[in-house]
Amino acid sequence: MRHLLALSLLLATAAYAEVPKPLTSAEVLALAPVEAWRAVDPDALVLLELESGTVYIELAPDFAPKHAEQLRGLIAQGYFDGLAVLRSQDNYVAQWGDPLADDVAQARPRGEQAERLAAEFDQASDKVGAFTPVPDGDVYAPEAGFIDGFPAGRDPATGRSWMAHCYGALGAGRDNAPDSGSAAQLYVVTGHAPRHLDRNVTLFGRVLEGVEHLSSLPRGSAPLGFYTAEQARPTVRAMRLASAIEPAERPAFEVMRTDSDSFRAFIESRRFRHEPWFAHPAGRIEVCNVAIPTRRSSATD
Amino acid sequence: MRHLLALSLLLATAAYAEVPKPLTSAEVLALAPVEAWRAVDPDALVLLELESGTVYIELAPDFAPKHAEQLRGLIAQGYFDGLAVLRSQDNYVAQWGDPLADDVAQARPRGEQAERLAAEFDQASDKVGAFTPVPDGDVYAPEAGFIDGFPAGRDPATGRSWMAHCYGALGAGRDNAPDSGSAAQLYVVTGHAPRHLDRNVTLFGRVLEGVEHLSSLPRGSAPLGFYTAEQARPTVRAMRLASAIEPAERPAFEVMRTDSDSFRAFIESRRFRHEPWFAHPAGRIEVCNVAIPTRRSSATD
Repeated sequence: MRHLLALSLLLATAAYAEVPKPLTSAEVLALAPVEAWRAVDPDALVLLELESGTVYIELAPDFAPKHAEQLRGLIAQGYFDGLAVLRSQDNYVAQWGDPLADDVAQARPRGEQAERLAAEFDQASDKVGAFTPVPDGDVYAPEAGFIDGFPAGRDPATGRSWMAHCYGALGAGRDNAPDSGSAAQLYVVTGHAPRHLDRNVTLFGRVLEGVEHLSSLPRGSAPLGFYTAEQARPTVRAMRLASAIEPAERPAFEVMRTDSDSFRAFIESRRFRHEPWFAHPAGRIEVCNVAIPTRRSSATD
Repeated sequence: MRHLLALSLLLATAAYAEVPKPLTSAEVLALAPVEAWRAVDPDALVLLELESGTVYIELAPDFAPKHAEQLRGLIAQGYFDGLAVLRSQDNYVAQWGDPLADDVAQARPRGEQAERLAAEFDQASDKVGAFTPVPDGDVYAPEAGFIDGFPAGRDPATGRSWMAHCYGALGAGRDNAPDSGSAAQLYVVTGHAPRHLDRNVTLFGRVLEGVEHLSSLPRGSAPLGFYTAEQARPTVRAMRLASAIEPAERPAFEVMRTDSDSFRAFIESRRFRHEPWFAHPAGRIEVCNVAIPTRRSSATD
C-alpha cells in the first residue's frame, strides 16, 4: 500500500514534472502495480527451438492478422520442424525456413496454407491498440512509439500504423513482389534497426526472450549472410505455439502495458539516466532504445 | 573517362536534384574516383586477434588523442596479448581486457602507461575534420553526420563534436569517475546504437572489418553480459598495430572520404533505395544506418 502510494506519486512526478526526478528504471519496475502488466496470450506465444536454445516470440495479430493466422497453421502442421536457419547477416537479420523452398519437387508441402499472402505492411490505426509516443521524435516515421507492446510508427495524415524494425522484430521474408511472402520464411532483426525496411515487409511479432540464440549464430559467408554449402546450417528443431503445450509445462510471459503510467515512467527513466555512472544523461530517447519490460510469469495461466 | 563524366553528372543529379534519380549504392561505388578514397594510416590501424578471427579497427586520434596514444603504447608492449573478452552483452557491447585488472597483485602491469586518463568525451569541432551532415535529423544530437570517416554528433551552440555510438564503434570502458578509463579495457558496440552513451564514454575508433568475430561471440550469462566462472572467456591472442607489421604482410584499407561528392551521393542512395525489392523507399536515413564504404587495398602503402 505504501508502495502503491509511492508509485502514484513517483509516476505523476516523472510523467508530468518539467524538471525530471531521479526515478531509475529499477525503481519503476519495482513499483509497477500488477495492472501495469498484461499476460501474453498463449495463442500468440511462439517457441522457436534451436540447438542453442529457445527463442520466445510474441505475435502481433492486430498488425498482420493473415500472417499470424498462417504462421499458426504452419506451426500446427509441423512445417518448420527440422528446417534450418538459412542466413545470418551481421548487423542485420537471421532468417529461417525451408532450404529447398525453391525446388518444386523437394520443397516441404504447406498443406492448406497459402503460397502467397497479401502484404500487411501497415494497418489502420483504429484497428490496433492505444499509441504511446516517444517524445523525442524519430528519423523515419512522422510519429514513433508503442502499440500493445510493440514499437511502432504512425502517420496521422494517412491514419496508418506499422511495426518498427527494432532489434528483435519478427518479419516475413519475401521476394520482390509485395505479396510473395507467406510466413513460411521468417526473420528476426539482430542488428541496428534497419528502419528503411519499415512498410516494406510484413512485421508481425517481437522476441520476448532468447534472441541471443539467433544473434550469436555464426555469420553466413555468402552474400546477404546466407550460409554456404560448406557451412552447416543451424537446425530449427521445431516451432511450437505455447497454447499447444500442456498447461503445466507451458512457458508464460508478461509484458508491461505500453499504455500504462508505469511504462510512461519507464520511458522517462530511460531518457534521463540518473545512475551514478552517467556524466551526461541524454534527456532523449529513440524508440528502438526502449527495451519493453518483459518477465516470466507462473507456468500456468 | 567516360566513367568520370558519368560520375560527375550522376553525382550532381543525385546530390542536388529535387526529385532523386535512381542511383544505387552499387553505382556510386563503381563510379567513385580514386580521390574519393583515403588510405587508412597504418599507425591508426589496429588488429584485434581472436580465436575466431581478426577484427580490424581504425583509430580516431583527432577525437581522442590521449586515448589513441595510450592504446598504441599498450599495444607496443604487448599488454593485450593473452588477455580475454570479459563481456558479451546481447544487443549492446563486447568488452575485452585484463580479467585480473582489479587485483593489485595479479593485474598485468601497464609499464609507463597511465592508470587513468582524462575523459575525451567530445572535442572542439575545429580540431576534427569537415562535417558532412545526414539531412534527416537525429534523435540524440543537434546535428549528426560524418567526420573523417566516423559517425559523429555536433552541437553548433557549443562548438563541440563527438563520435556517435553506432554499431562497431570502439570505446574505452570506465568506472563511475569520468577519468577512470585508460584504454586498457576496450569495447565495441555490437547492437542497436546505444546513443545514450554518447559523451559519456571516450570513443576513439570504429571497426572496418571482422566485427562479426565480436558480435557472434556467445553471450555472457552474468549481469551486463559478463562471462561467469563456468564460461570459457574468449582469448585475445594479440593486439597489433599495422605499422608494426612488415610492409609485405601488412593489411591495408581504404575508407571513402566522408566529405567527398561520392559519399554524399552514397548517402542519397541509401535514403532512396531504388532496388526493385523496395515497395516504399524511406527517403530518409539515420546516421548509424549509413555503412561507410570501406575496402581492402594493396598490401603495401
